[in-house]
Amino acid sequence: MKVVESLEVLWQTRKGLPGPVGFVPTMGYLHQGHLQLVRQAKKQSASVVVSIFVNPTQFGPGEDLASYPRDLSRDLTLLKTTGADLVWTPTSEEMYPEGFQTWVETTQVTQPLEGSYRPGHFRGVTTIVAKLFNAVQPDLAFFGQKDAQQAAVIQQMTRDLSYPIKIVIVPTMREGDGLALSSRNIYLNQEQRAAATVLYRALRAAESAYLDGERSGAALRSVMIETIKTEPLAEVQYVSCADRVSLQELDRVTDGALLSMVVYLGKTRLIDNWILE
Amino acid sequence: MKVVESLEVLWQTRKGLPGPVGFVPTMGYLHQGHLQLVRQAKKQSASVVVSIFVNPTQFGPGEDLASYPRDLSRDLTLLKTTGADLVWTPTSEEMYPEGFQTWVETTQVTQPLEGSYRPGHFRGVTTIVAKLFNAVQPDLAFFGQKDAQQAAVIQQMTRDLSYPIKIVIVPTMREGDGLALSSRNIYLNQEQRAAATVLYRALRAAESAYLDGERSGAALRSVMIETIKTEPLAEVQYVSCADRVSLQELDRVTDGALLSMVVYLGKTRLIDNWILE
Repeated sequence: MKVVESLEVLWQTRKGLPGPVGFVPTMGYLHQGHLQLVRQAKKQSASVVVSIFVNPTQFGPGEDLASYPRDLSRDLTLLKTTGADLVWTPTSEEMYPEGFQTWVETTQVTQPLEGSYRPGHFRGVTTIVAKLFNAVQPDLAFFGQKDAQQAAVIQQMTRDLSYPIKIVIVPTMREGDGLALSSRNIYLNQEQRAAATVLYRALRAAESAYLDGERSGAALRSVMIETIKTEPLAEVQYVSCADRVSLQELDRVTDGALLSMVVYLGKTRLIDNWILE
Repeated sequence: MKVVESLEVLWQTRKGLPGPVGFVPTMGYLHQGHLQLVRQAKKQSASVVVSIFVNPTQFGPGEDLASYPRDLSRDLTLLKTTGADLVWTPTSEEMYPEGFQTWVETTQVTQPLEGSYRPGHFRGVTTIVAKLFNAVQPDLAFFGQKDAQQAAVIQQMTRDLSYPIKIVIVPTMREGDGLALSSRNIYLNQEQRAAATVLYRALRAAESAYLDGERSGAALRSVMIETIKTEPLAEVQYVSCADRVSLQELDRVTDGALLSMVVYLGKTRLIDNWILE
C-alpha cells in the first residue's frame, strides 16, 4: 500500500494503477462502515484508492471541524489490512491555496434536510468531491447510504458534470443494537450511547407502520417523532419521509421512499435513514 | 478521424486513445485561429480531441445564441485536414438534460471586464469546460489568447479544481490588417469590416505609448479610447489595462500587463487584447 500526500505525486502514481480504479473518499477516523466501502471497492476494481481529508469547507461556523476526530496511523493500519492500494492524504494548504475561488454547486437536491440546517455544507461537499474525482480519475466511487442526501447529491453532481464514474452506494453498517456506525459516535457518553438506538428504533417503527399499510407521509413522520420523544436524552432536529432522488417530502408514500432524521444526543448530532421496501 | 456524438461512445473511444491526449474545445464554425489550436495540440500530444458545441449556458438573454453561425460538415473537413483524431459533437439535450442543476463557478477573476457586461457568461463557460474536461480527461487543453479573460478563468478553475491538465494558451491569429480572427467577423458588412481594424490599431497605439515610457494605466486607456473615437462606425464598450492574472485594473503598468477592449461595429460585438512586453 502506497501513501502519498502531494497532488503532483498522486497524479503520477495514479497513472501506474491498473484499472478499473475504485475510489473511497473519507474524512478519516475510519470505522467498519468505511472499511466496508473499501471491501466493496476491492470486489469491483483492480485498484483501490482511498483519500483521507477532513474537508474544512463542508463544516459550518460552530460545527465540529476543530474537534473532528483524527488518527492517521490507525487509519493507515486498517486500510493496509483491508487491502487499499493507494492512500492519498492531501493537505488543506494544497487543496485550498491562497486565492482559491472556484466552487461546484448542485442547486436543488441540496436544499431540503441537511441543506436547510447546514447552509453551505453541500457546496463544500460537491466542491471537494469534484476535486477528488478530478485528481484521482476513478472508474467507480463508493459512498455510504448512511449519508443518504450526500449520496443523492453526489449522484446528481456526477450525472450533471458528465463524469465517466459509476457511483456505488453501500448499505449502512450498524452495531448489534442498530446504531449506525459513525465517527461521531466517539463523542457519546455511556448514557447517550444507550439512548442513541432511538434513531434506529424510530426508523423501524415507521417501517412497521408502512408495512401495516400506512401510506401517509405525515403519519410516518409522526411515528418517528413519537418514538424519539420516548427517549429523554434525545432531541429531534428533523424527521423526513421523502422521495429518495429529489428528497422532496411525500404526502403519499410508496416503495423506495426514504425515511431520514437528525437527532441530538447532548451536543452530538446523529443522522440515520432507512429505505422503505 | 472519428466523429462521435453520445457521451457514452465518447467515454469508450477515449479509453483507446494513445496519450498524452490534447483537447481543443470549440463552438464550431472554425477559422484558422481554431486550426492553429489543433496544430499546436498535435505538436504536444499523441492524440488530439476536438469538441464542437455551441454552449447555450454561456449566452445571455439577447445575445446571439440562435444566430451563432454553424457549419458542421465544413468544420469536419477542416479538422480532418488538420489532423484531429477524435471529434465530439454533443447535443444540448445530453449536456443539459431535464433536471440539470450543477454549476461550476469561479468567483473573482470572472467579475470585471466581460463578467461585468455579460452576467452569467463565465458560469456557463466554467460549467461546460468542466464537463468537457471530465468527459474527455485530456492531459493538455488548448485555448486562444484572443479570449484573454476566458483563458485566465480557465487557468484559475483548472488549478482550483485539481485537474491534472496542462492549459496551453495559443497566440491570437490575425488577418493581414491586424483584425483578430473570430467566428463573429462573418456578421460584418464591408464597411464595418474595414472599420474593425480599429481594435488592433488602438491596442498598438497604447503599446507604442507604453514603449515610449508611458506607465499610467489611465493614460494607456485614454490612448485606446481616443483611437477608437477616430472610427465613426465603432462604438467602444470598454477598454482595460489590467493585471493579466487577476484582471484588476492597473494604476501603474509594468511588463506583462493586459490591454483589452470590446468594440461594437453595428450590432457585432468584437473583442481583442494585447500583452505589453
